[in-house]
Amino acid sequence: MSHFIDENFLLSTETSRRLYHEVAAKAPIVDYHCHVSPREIWEDRRYENITQVWLAGDHYKWRLMRSSGVEERFITGDASDREKFQKFAECLPRAIGNPMVHWCHLELKRYFGYDGVLNGKTAQTVWELTERVLKGGLSARRIIEESGVFFIGTTDDPVDLLEWHEKIAADPTFSVTVAPSFRPDKALRIDKPDWRTYIDTLSRVSGVQITNLDELKAALIARIAYFADRGCRSADHGLDYAIYREADDTDVNAIMQKGLRGEPVTCEEAEKFQTCLLVTCAEEYARREMVMQIHYNCLRNPNSAAFATLGPDSGFDCVGQGSSLPLARLLDRLYRADALPKTILYSLDAGDDAFLGSLIGAFQGAGVRGKLQHGSAWWFNDHKEGMRKQLISLANLSTLGNFVGMLTDSRSFLSYTRHEYFRRILCDLIGGWVENGEYPNDPDTLNTIVRDICCDNALRYFGLGDIQV
Amino acid sequence: MSHFIDENFLLSTETSRRLYHEVAAKAPIVDYHCHVSPREIWEDRRYENITQVWLAGDHYKWRLMRSSGVEERFITGDASDREKFQKFAECLPRAIGNPMVHWCHLELKRYFGYDGVLNGKTAQTVWELTERVLKGGLSARRIIEESGVFFIGTTDDPVDLLEWHEKIAADPTFSVTVAPSFRPDKALRIDKPDWRTYIDTLSRVSGVQITNLDELKAALIARIAYFADRGCRSADHGLDYAIYREADDTDVNAIMQKGLRGEPVTCEEAEKFQTCLLVTCAEEYARREMVMQIHYNCLRNPNSAAFATLGPDSGFDCVGQGSSLPLARLLDRLYRADALPKTILYSLDAGDDAFLGSLIGAFQGAGVRGKLQHGSAWWFNDHKEGMRKQLISLANLSTLGNFVGMLTDSRSFLSYTRHEYFRRILCDLIGGWVENGEYPNDPDTLNTIVRDICCDNALRYFGLGDIQV
Amino acid sequence: MSHFIDENFLLSTETSRRLYHEVAAKAPIVDYHCHVSPREIWEDRRYENITQVWLAGDHYKWRLMRSSGVEERFITGDASDREKFQKFAECLPRAIGNPMVHWCHLELKRYFGYDGVLNGKTAQTVWELTERVLKGGLSARRIIEESGVFFIGTTDDPVDLLEWHEKIAADPTFSVTVAPSFRPDKALRIDKPDWRTYIDTLSRVSGVQITNLDELKAALIARIAYFADRGCRSADHGLDYAIYREADDTDVNAIMQKGLRGEPVTCEEAEKFQTCLLVTCAEEYARREMVMQIHYNCLRNPNSAAFATLGPDSGFDCVGQGSSLPLARLLDRLYRADALPKTILYSLDAGDDAFLGSLIGAFQGAGVRGKLQHGSAWWFNDHKEGMRKQLISLANLSTLGNFVGMLTDSRSFLSYTRHEYFRRILCDLIGGWVENGEYPNDPDTLNTIVRDICCDNALRYFGLGDIQV
Repeated sequence: MSHFIDENFLLSTETSRRLYHEVAAKAPIVDYHCHVSPREIWEDRRYENITQVWLAGDHYKWRLMRSSGVEERFITGDASDREKFQKFAECLPRAIGNPMVHWCHLELKRYFGYDGVLNGKTAQTVWELTERVLKGGLSARRIIEESGVFFIGTTDDPVDLLEWHEKIAADPTFSVTVAPSFRPDKALRIDKPDWRTYIDTLSRVSGVQITNLDELKAALIARIAYFADRGCRSADHGLDYAIYREADDTDVNAIMQKGLRGEPVTCEEAEKFQTCLLVTCAEEYARREMVMQIHYNCLRNPNSAAFATLGPDSGFDCVGQGSSLPLARLLDRLYRADALPKTILYSLDAGDDAFLGSLIGAFQGAGVRGKLQHGSAWWFNDHKEGMRKQLISLANLSTLGNFVGMLTDSRSFLSYTRHEYFRRILCDLIGGWVENGEYPNDPDTLNTIVRDICCDNALRYFGLGDIQV
Repeated sequence: MSHFIDENFLLSTETSRRLYHEVAAKAPIVDYHCHVSPREIWEDRRYENITQVWLAGDHYKWRLMRSSGVEERFITGDASDREKFQKFAECLPRAIGNPMVHWCHLELKRYFGYDGVLNGKTAQTVWELTERVLKGGLSARRIIEESGVFFIGTTDDPVDLLEWHEKIAADPTFSVTVAPSFRPDKALRIDKPDWRTYIDTLSRVSGVQITNLDELKAALIARIAYFADRGCRSADHGLDYAIYREADDTDVNAIMQKGLRGEPVTCEEAEKFQTCLLVTCAEEYARREMVMQIHYNCLRNPNSAAFATLGPDSGFDCVGQGSSLPLARLLDRLYRADALPKTILYSLDAGDDAFLGSLIGAFQGAGVRGKLQHGSAWWFNDHKEGMRKQLISLANLSTLGNFVGMLTDSRSFLSYTRHEYFRRILCDLIGGWVENGEYPNDPDTLNTIVRDICCDNALRYFGLGDIQV
Repeated sequence: MSHFIDENFLLSTETSRRLYHEVAAKAPIVDYHCHVSPREIWEDRRYENITQVWLAGDHYKWRLMRSSGVEERFITGDASDREKFQKFAECLPRAIGNPMVHWCHLELKRYFGYDGVLNGKTAQTVWELTERVLKGGLSARRIIEESGVFFIGTTDDPVDLLEWHEKIAADPTFSVTVAPSFRPDKALRIDKPDWRTYIDTLSRVSGVQITNLDELKAALIARIAYFADRGCRSADHGLDYAIYREADDTDVNAIMQKGLRGEPVTCEEAEKFQTCLLVTCAEEYARREMVMQIHYNCLRNPNSAAFATLGPDSGFDCVGQGSSLPLARLLDRLYRADALPKTILYSLDAGDDAFLGSLIGAFQGAGVRGKLQHGSAWWFNDHKEGMRKQLISLANLSTLGNFVGMLTDSRSFLSYTRHEYFRRILCDLIGGWVENGEYPNDPDTLNTIVRDICCDNALRYFGLGDIQV
């Protein structure tokens, strides 16, 4: 019987334990895709209590509370921070088997030194302990530094001026690299009500008067240049589902004119518009050796009443279901034009894993290890079984040793323990193979593979150079 | 090496064994969805031999025999009961890895005291033993009572008068609650040849003259009231695939008029009609705090020749494949109108698990633990791997501790051992987590969670009150 | 800690080891579906070095090299054989968890007596050793004979004259049966540019002037007869996705006339044409008691640039995604006409496993054990997890004991170790069930089941008679 989350948590073999403690635990964190606020890093955000740092922006926790019937006022409403924390603590034990139980306790251990269990009865103790630690100076920067983070890739809109990134870069007291990622979803979603207003903003920020497709392309390319100048190494596209609908520029411009006039566009027209701009952006990423990430098969805001009240990203999204085949056509289009950037593909539906693992094999590129990647288990798949499944699928269909590994995708500074979680699962899997006679027990090779997946592959892939730690 | 189905069957850790023997094994059975005959309960059906109780209505067993090339006359034909049993016994050993091997032997152990193995050679012994036990009085009621059943939810057509339910309820010698469930599929399937005749019957039984949509709605609502008056706590809808196609009542009434005139309706029209009535029923369920169950993605009767000969439910159905996205729109429609009942969603395609586990999280309701549920592994998924997969998916995506748990979905009174099967798998999973350091070893919390999933959650969810056993 | 691929590789229980060593390892190989060259068997092909026998035609290995960024000249280009081998050896260690690691080392062990690890450092040693063994006479025939192969089912085009098969059959010095399989894909793909030319060849070879649908059918039937006369027991159809689109012969003939005139046909027309000929062929297979295999859900050549350069089957295909439902209609059509042959269904998307496992149950036939089969884990699924998943799914949904088992599907003579790989996984699964108390520990029954799945079921199914070894 193991103790709850002890030092050998999830490490079931001797080799797994060796690989984790000697290699993985010591590797720096390259968190190449997340949603933390660069402003909060610059300002070195501090927190009064655990609710502020833990519950205020975490829609995973909100979902958990809602699934136990907690009233919304204790979730996103006007209840006190202490009350909200109490409700969450009361819900947590019933979430047995949910990664939240592991994430929460890993965070309480690593950042607050709490070795006990969080539940309704211990909530007061945890509240007091965490308050002391937060008042003692556990700020955003300290969390980052104590976590061994080397690189943070935030997620930013093209119209963002990246002023916080500039300030952070100019600050000699903070050594972690914080780079923006280019996420132009708003520019592409001509079917959304706020698109026209967004184009006005993009026009202003880019200095390009946008009245037609060519000008929109020019504005996006200008913003990619602006981002690249400020250290951006990666772009990200969030698609509800995989799209590829080809059309010539004349047609796409006509669709755009409808949008500019405020006329509705059909679903098909919106797909043509998105495809065209996705290709334009991808070509620019390829030219600049930036990485393109695509996240898809996500059903956002299915609950329209909750969306009307609480807005997006409030814990009401769900896994989508749609054919992934259009991605093959998108990659083909770019490959043919010799304009396929390094690309990481993530589907929220793990049923697409085999498709992605095999698709990337059809578009790899000479001179780059793992130019096309099947991204780490994402969002609703970000748990022990999901990570294991993605790693096994990737290993079977591609080359696991080339994998760029884990990212938090998180809005919280406390989520770096998810790298620990991933690394334990990775080392357990690899150590298990070795002890089961499925891979040679060659420590040098194994150490290199583990270190590569933990950080070195990502460092090379995102052009961050090798580091010595 | 464990013995075949010994007392620690499927319980691989100490904690699993403790949880099963101390908690799960003692919990009463709440079989909230099944297909047993209330008439047979009332009449306390007796059986002459094992073929009558085991093979006569069990299409799982028929499939197994067909897959080994057994001729139909030994399955549903005119061969003798003894011959049929012999054929089945001969097929069983080759079904290694099939849950049928476990179900059969659990039933032989628990109800007939047979500890051996069933195969062609032992068939005669088992035949004689089971005949003695059946003649000794192993009737429908005795099976139910000996199984520790507290509640049975049968599945009933709106035109059913529920006379057997009334008789059972009035019988002081039988303490188990047997409640009807409302399953109005026939009223909704305007595309089926027998729909018009069915509407006539519904008209007669409900006392509502049905000549248009409003009257059909009124008739259904009247029957829901009739069912509710007789203890009905739950409805069930069987859909071939997930549907949601909105239309206004005028259009739907026009479609209905076509149906009443005996004209064929298109697939799209049938979907509009079904959507409209599904919403009407759901609103009524919500008003009455009844639970709505939806079973979907089932390809029924793909073998038209077998269907012509043997009719429905004869072991020729299979797993369907279709998008689950329309369910999101159905739930949204009901939620917006504040008319979403407690709902349990089941897909026959386990590939939909992640969709369902995340979808329910977007529609939960304040004041109810797990108002929306991802239903237990169903039909073709009702085996060790399927149950484990559903439990793990649910745990990862929602709150396992709120799960209403297992149901037999069976036509046979001997199937209550499937609750035992489920409980062993549940306890093994939870015990494994604890011993692996993935959950605190806190016996009180663990006991509560296990007991909740075995019975208490279902008791609360279906409004049956807490019970002391 | 087990040694890397030792004698108990993948056999984790005592019962698994007994079943493998005493039963499975001794069973002859019935490789009923593969892509080896009958000409190379007849000529008893010899190889100068390991690159020729290992890398020259193996697109699995090419993919692996591409995924590590190796330049194409080291893969399919003009680099020397030694250089190509070096590059592959350097890539292999990073493919941890990929079945390639097991396949390669099993082949090096069994055919070349190499017990070490292949990597960049050992490549020279392995090169020299394998060169010695190949020069020592490790020819195509010797590999086949040393592997214990009893039957080989090659894959052949209807226009093939089968001269090599005839020569092999007439050769008293070679006892292995090498039979052709009928694969008429080219005749059915009216949407492909080379279809018209192909019809000319078919016309010439069959001696049937083909100017309309009836004549095309007659030509195909004539070729089936020709194949059957030369020992053919099986046909194979490769479909990009599951199709069934009914049309009457007049319509299909009109579509065919368009094709003959060189006019393009629509996707729908092509599906009607394929459906019609698929049914025609299937009826003929049924008449002759031949087995029909259908492989589907494969996205071929998504990378059009690579296809233009390197052609088909060069390692650029991927898993497809499409509804399997049309297969139900195809089987129904044939069953209704009493013309459904023994059929094995394979989807490249393992997400279809549950559909296939349940679909076959709706179309089984009296007098044949497992007339309809869910085929072995195929291509991208041909690894430990994929095989285990297919076996478990099949066991849960059908009768595992009736399974016709493994095939290599390979172009290489060295792939017979994949039968060993499959058998170890099978025995581990079954032995695990027994030791876990999930199946009776009855050695006779277990031995029969294992032997049946390894060879005897396939021998019966393909009409090869029982053999004594």
